Amino acid sequence: MNEANLHDGGSVLFFKSEYIGEFVYGGIDGAITTFAVVAGAAGAGADLSWVLIFGFANLLADGFSMSVGNFFSSKAEQANFEKHKAIEYWEIEHKRASEVQEIEDIFRAKGFEGKLLDQVVEVIISNKKVWVDTMMKEELEMIKDTRKPINTALATFIAFVLVGLIPLSSYLMAIWIEIDAQLLFPISCIATGFAMAVIGYLKGFVTRANYLISVAETVLLGGLAAFLAYFVGELLGSYFS
Amino acid sequence: MNEANLHDGGSVLFFKSEYIGEFVYGGIDGAITTFAVVAGAAGAGADLSWVLIFGFANLLADGFSMSVGNFFSSKAEQANFEKHKAIEYWEIEHKRASEVQEIEDIFRAKGFEGKLLDQVVEVIISNKKVWVDTMMKEELEMIKDTRKPINTALATFIAFVLVGLIPLSSYLMAIWIEIDAQLLFPISCIATGFAMAVIGYLKGFVTRANYLISVAETVLLGGLAAFLAYFVGELLGSYFS
Repeated sequence: MNEANLHDGGSVLFFKSEYIGEFVYGGIDGAITTFAVVAGAAGAGADLSWVLIFGFANLLADGFSMSVGNFFSSKAEQANFEKHKAIEYWEIEHKRASEVQEIEDIFRAKGFEGKLLDQVVEVIISNKKVWVDTMMKEELEMIKDTRKPINTALATFIAFVLVGLIPLSSYLMAIWIEIDAQLLFPISCIATGFAMAVIGYLKGFVTRANYLISVAETVLLGGLAAFLAYFVGELLGSYFS
Repeated sequence: MNEANLHDGGSVLFFKSEYIGEFVYGGIDGAITTFAVVAGAAGAGADLSWVLIFGFANLLADGFSMSVGNFFSSKAEQANFEKHKAIEYWEIEHKRASEVQEIEDIFRAKGFEGKLLDQVVEVIISNKKVWVDTMMKEELEMIKDTRKPINTALATFIAFVLVGLIPLSSYLMAIWIEIDAQLLFPISCIATGFAMAVIGYLKGFVTRANYLISVAETVLLGGLAAFLAYFVGELLGSYFS
């Protein structure tokens, strides 16, 4: 048994495994956003044109906002990490005694005592970087995400738009190819269900959960969300007609 | 200077600071989702009824999917943490030599050497819990989120729906009160802009960033997303009319 195999997912299909999380969650959100428009329209009996207008308005606006929001929050998280690190550096200079005490408490909790504990504390506080790193992990329990914010944001956007196009695809094709209007929603449901199954499978890699459960959860989630949207569409559609 | 004050945000307004992150990101997503519908409709010249049908379909379906997705991913993250912990327990039993070596490497990197290093390793590996905890933090850099998944999911849902209602509020009121149809979109823009400013301010607490920058970023993000939706609505609206 190889340790790397036990802990790492490696790369899946053509995705860098580092960004599968963004692909999965961006993809789910993209598909649900446009599928809600499609299902709401089906419930309300709305025309193809409204599906495409509201579908694309939501696809671009939500995809943009989600990925830019992701960019800002990743940047802010890293800045927050650096800020706390700076506070720890400040504290070991200006509140040295209590910070030494904290290191002592941390290692006493690990089972060190007596002279050995004193020696361990001495080694840790002899190097400021080691001292601060120990406080970050042991006291604040903060770990830095070293991935570039622009990359996680791009992965989110691409996934959101690509997967979000799937529920709209039958309506989009109906502009050029003749498709029975009655079939547009069923085709969209099948295509979206298939997409959710693939994403659920990929989610199994991210969460290292059972693949079948992961696929079932994701498909069910999409189905229930669409049911809600259909129900709202039908209810409000009959109210306004 | 008090350490708790330096590191913690405390509670803000009536929110438990623990869940402000969920409130902020759920709220932004809720507002952008319905604001995209409102702006797309304004661009396409769609009726009040379509704004409410698609607005509420997206509000409920996306809010449901986002919070249930949050629930599953929190649960999966915690399960993944436990799984890796179990792997580490397995490894210290079955690959003891290499796991002892890893502990030695971790503490050598902290500046320990010679006899003291041997003693430190001995204390760490004398307690399996301490040994595994050290591997989780130092080797895998994994920290457990101890919040209940149901709470983070609920905080997300409540924020999504409450803040997501704001862009729709003028259209909703127009059912009962007479409001000039020309004013519905401007009122929605002002209300949404105000909501984004409040959320941006709260985001300042979450990310501990400069409040003015946080407010400006959030309002701008909402404005740009709405501009995209308006543009798509206008473009497709003129194509289909």
